[in-house]
Amino acid sequence: MTDLELMQAALDEAKIAAKLGEVPVGAVIAKDGEIIARAHNLRETGKNATYHAELLAIDAACRVLGGWRLWQCELFVTLEPCPMCSGAIINSRLRRVVYGAGDPKAGCCGSLTDLFALPFNHHPAVEHGLLEEEAQALLQDFFASLREKRKAGKHSYRVRKEV
Amino acid sequence: MTDLELMQAALDEAKIAAKLGEVPVGAVIAKDGEIIARAHNLRETGKNATYHAELLAIDAACRVLGGWRLWQCELFVTLEPCPMCSGAIINSRLRRVVYGAGDPKAGCCGSLTDLFALPFNHHPAVEHGLLEEEAQALLQDFFASLREKRKAGKHSYRVRKEV
Repeated sequence: MTDLELMQAALDEAKIAAKLGEVPVGAVIAKDGEIIARAHNLRETGKNATYHAELLAIDAACRVLGGWRLWQCELFVTLEPCPMCSGAIINSRLRRVVYGAGDPKAGCCGSLTDLFALPFNHHPAVEHGLLEEEAQALLQDFFASLREKRKAGKHSYRVRKEV
Repeated sequence: MTDLELMQAALDEAKIAAKLGEVPVGAVIAKDGEIIARAHNLRETGKNATYHAELLAIDAACRVLGGWRLWQCELFVTLEPCPMCSGAIINSRLRRVVYGAGDPKAGCCGSLTDLFALPFNHHPAVEHGLLEEEAQALLQDFFASLREKRKAGKHSYRVRKEV
């Protein structure tokens, strides 16, 4: 599969997240150009702070390959990874990361900070901008819809029980 | 339980990791001074890059409490968190982090970098140095033993199958 097809598959995952009422972020991990893991953000549905698309995809890829080093694998994700997911990319030794839209609020591949520029023991290749507009549009539609629902008092997002 | 008792419980987890041949790092999460989750590093045994003590403890705490926000919880960990685990601390809104030994190679709470000093949307309180010598001694013993085994050609650590 081409980079474009792989990012389209990540975007399809993000659309599944949107339908579940999750912030629409999707990811796939490919080895030799074929998808070995796919995931979408499930933080609200799964009630778990670690259920970001990238972390779930890395977890799945480790299970599929039976090891923690994903040296021959590439991650395609619709939104720039947060610190947790950027750290998981370092820890799993993914060789290449391609993300769609930048995230000025939490992106750790160059936006808020660049973790890969620090002297950790692994430095993946990073590219961005592939299907950026589509990924951004999904996010914008999601948050616009959320604002409408909040105005109408119909959505519980962000007002779940504190634990 | 006191901070010292909670860190002792984290150290007990680190000792379990050492017995399994894992880099000895342990963590507990407490709410109202009582342990609700405990975990140790399982990267090699679990063959998974995400199986750090802190991430496993955060995952377990979310499951126990049925939600992703750990606002009322505190993390005690024997070694300074890496970027992935520091990011998971931000994502889970843990209110306080206490770590034992610093990690100049990958620590993201002030050693290699300080992720909590960046403008993310959550900033936990951080303390360190509790049972530092004990945590450091465990790590030093582990790596000394590993070097001995490597010299003798008896240990497969770091030469597992590439995936």
